[in-house]
Amino acid sequence: MTTSPLQKPLRALHQGLRDGSLSAVDLTESAIQAYRTRGQQDHAYKTWNGDAAMAFAQATDALLKQGGDAGRLMGMPVSIKDIYAVPGLPTYAGSSRRLPPEWETPGPVVSTLLNQLPVVMGKTHTVEFAFGGLGTNAHHGAPRNPWDPVAHRTPGGSSSGAGVSLASGTTALAFGTDTAGSVRVPASMTGVAGLKTSVGRWSTAQIVPLSTTLDTPGLLARRVDDLAFAFDALDPGLNPGGSAVPATPNLADLTFGVPETFFWDDCSPGIAEAVSDAIKQLEAAGARVITLELPNTDDAFTLFQQGGVAAAELAAFLHTSLPEAIEALDPNVAARIAAADGMPGWEYVRRRQVIDALSRTAGEQLRHVDAILTPTVAITPPTLESLEPEGAYPKANMKALRNTVMANFMGLCALTLPIGKDAANMPVGLQVMAAPWQDARLLAIGKAIEKRLGNGLDILGQVPPTA
Amino acid sequence: MTTSPLQKPLRALHQGLRDGSLSAVDLTESAIQAYRTRGQQDHAYKTWNGDAAMAFAQATDALLKQGGDAGRLMGMPVSIKDIYAVPGLPTYAGSSRRLPPEWETPGPVVSTLLNQLPVVMGKTHTVEFAFGGLGTNAHHGAPRNPWDPVAHRTPGGSSSGAGVSLASGTTALAFGTDTAGSVRVPASMTGVAGLKTSVGRWSTAQIVPLSTTLDTPGLLARRVDDLAFAFDALDPGLNPGGSAVPATPNLADLTFGVPETFFWDDCSPGIAEAVSDAIKQLEAAGARVITLELPNTDDAFTLFQQGGVAAAELAAFLHTSLPEAIEALDPNVAARIAAADGMPGWEYVRRRQVIDALSRTAGEQLRHVDAILTPTVAITPPTLESLEPEGAYPKANMKALRNTVMANFMGLCALTLPIGKDAANMPVGLQVMAAPWQDARLLAIGKAIEKRLGNGLDILGQVPPTA
Repeated sequence: MTTSPLQKPLRALHQGLRDGSLSAVDLTESAIQAYRTRGQQDHAYKTWNGDAAMAFAQATDALLKQGGDAGRLMGMPVSIKDIYAVPGLPTYAGSSRRLPPEWETPGPVVSTLLNQLPVVMGKTHTVEFAFGGLGTNAHHGAPRNPWDPVAHRTPGGSSSGAGVSLASGTTALAFGTDTAGSVRVPASMTGVAGLKTSVGRWSTAQIVPLSTTLDTPGLLARRVDDLAFAFDALDPGLNPGGSAVPATPNLADLTFGVPETFFWDDCSPGIAEAVSDAIKQLEAAGARVITLELPNTDDAFTLFQQGGVAAAELAAFLHTSLPEAIEALDPNVAARIAAADGMPGWEYVRRRQVIDALSRTAGEQLRHVDAILTPTVAITPPTLESLEPEGAYPKANMKALRNTVMANFMGLCALTLPIGKDAANMPVGLQVMAAPWQDARLLAIGKAIEKRLGNGLDILGQVPPTA
Repeated sequence: MTTSPLQKPLRALHQGLRDGSLSAVDLTESAIQAYRTRGQQDHAYKTWNGDAAMAFAQATDALLKQGGDAGRLMGMPVSIKDIYAVPGLPTYAGSSRRLPPEWETPGPVVSTLLNQLPVVMGKTHTVEFAFGGLGTNAHHGAPRNPWDPVAHRTPGGSSSGAGVSLASGTTALAFGTDTAGSVRVPASMTGVAGLKTSVGRWSTAQIVPLSTTLDTPGLLARRVDDLAFAFDALDPGLNPGGSAVPATPNLADLTFGVPETFFWDDCSPGIAEAVSDAIKQLEAAGARVITLELPNTDDAFTLFQQGGVAAAELAAFLHTSLPEAIEALDPNVAARIAAADGMPGWEYVRRRQVIDALSRTAGEQLRHVDAILTPTVAITPPTLESLEPEGAYPKANMKALRNTVMANFMGLCALTLPIGKDAANMPVGLQVMAAPWQDARLLAIGKAIEKRLGNGLDILGQVPPTA
């Protein structure tokens, strides 16, 4: 794969688009070329928007030449997870049917994005109704994790096409959502950076709901600095108290908390080692690293394995708004929805209260450190084949989400950045979790880490061509 | 019954306590005298605190003489519903057992009250865990509605002792809570005024929870002006954005919405007539009265009859915090909790979303008027005997709460004031509902109505002596 202009930092793209050294057409052509080369095979998109994107890029360039500036993301190729309503593009939300037309009216995140005139390359695949962490989909098939040239490994989910759209070069920025890890798991598995925003910070209106109380919009990009650039472009429009990402701190001024237990248990070969090594590098560069446990992680994980709150919340949405979709559900999704029928309402109320209590305690713990560091995902991306035996999918799914769901259940914001490869030669992510609403500062901390360790391209190199 | 100083407006008591024409001991003696005369029979209190109250009143008078002033409610007899944690007094919450000691540590409402050094006369009876609108209690018996000298009629619930404590002269101000009408129903049935605050405005911490999403603290007093006086004393301490009750508006400057349907259906003889007549008087005094329907009242009432959200929320609390209480529940409460076991979590989620949607629509409707007027309670207080036949209790309970629960399900604040008597010679209340967080303005509107129609003492006269 030749070097694409889309691999440059978003800041460089922004500069190039403004000084005329780059054009929206250049970037869009590069994205379309990547789609032609490997896009079909990587299968990142439910709806590819290449032709309309090129026409839009041409018009954008004309405007840029006239000095028009609609915002930082103008002219930049973006992909959007197919659970966001986007005007003119159908929404399936990973289901077998196109959702009713109201799911093509944008909410605040997409409106804030589109007002800046980006080039929308298409809508990326998702696990059905975003309810799964591996990226499989019985209706539309799973995108291919581009880092394994031979076996079809999972791309991570539920934003299953988002990470792949970046890794295989068809976009500069990808929009996902995260309820239990659905931004961070695919980012980690495909070797890119990902941000899960604090719950409530960015509106989830007109995003097909999985969990009305835990869903969060999020971003995937090639580096933390790209996430920070996009965050600065979007957050002031979405969050009236929005703050710019502050200056990158010195590692020597940061204290990281590292849990000793839970997050490190039974990781696939090479994962704990790679993350541990990354943390040692940060410590060597002057960061203070202390042991800090998050509260009741075992109980929280048990709650998650029992279905958490999302199963009941998704069931409520389906029963109310899309009853006909229930019969046609992906079997892996259907099993979890069916299990929710047997859970009484008071148990749902109890679970919500447990989550609220976890958030309070975790918030207290976070006062002692700037951020908490853990492996993002405990397992190497499994092959599709390995998920076929009875019981294999639920087990792998739970384990894939084990480390990320803690941030969701504890009300934190979190990011992941690639820091190495595991024993299967697949990307490994470092998870960085911070206190609620510290999203801007979290990004600055992530940039400090990236500055020391390098970004995904530095560490992982180019995606290998498929065999 | 002779005229008690406690029948004076709270403003007059406040003035008298400051200028020395009244003492806390005077007021407390009057309360104790009323308790001796008819308190046993009216059965308003689970825990009577007369002796300690008198000692406290003496100390308070000494302080007042020294110019000490701890706030507007200093020296005033108050009663507190037995689901608020109050230091030194046991909490049963209407159950058969004393709750654990943590339920004697006060939350914000009681702390804000106690900081002003009122005289706490005792803790008033409640329906078990506040889950019922008539005021019955299988463990402790129902307080007696003092307006029927012959039959034992219900006092209204769940703040079943609160209204009675006022009507029979043992307090100047009563604290209740309202989840579906539990302040307004007993206030209406016992001929006093009652305020249900906007949900979220006053903390429910350390109040035994019925519904974590709908519970609201509230006040009962002899007149709306007393509610306003107490609100001004409490709200700035409880609500950082607290505002004083504004000047009483002219009726000619007010627009009232009156629904044509639902609230008036099948009222007991004399109720609709009395309320209708009151509204005509307001119109004659210059108020603008328009027809205005609240949204989806029939659907909302069906949801309430199915258990709403409180059954699941109370069950969650009991299962988590007081599992041993479940076996011992009042049969009328137990039946509703048991029904919640069969409701799946997703149905609870759906119901919460219906309530959120109702609140949004009602909020829109309220823009067209200053307040909405309806009968507070559709039925005359039933005799205990009439509730004995199979199925009689649930039917009467639902109907008693029918008109009030709409304010809870629609996110409104509301008050009731006595405006006449029904065909059974029992008090009738006018319900005044206003937009969320308009509590202070609602009280000003209530005062304007009271100024025209008279207060409870003017309209109902003295409570008759029992036969």
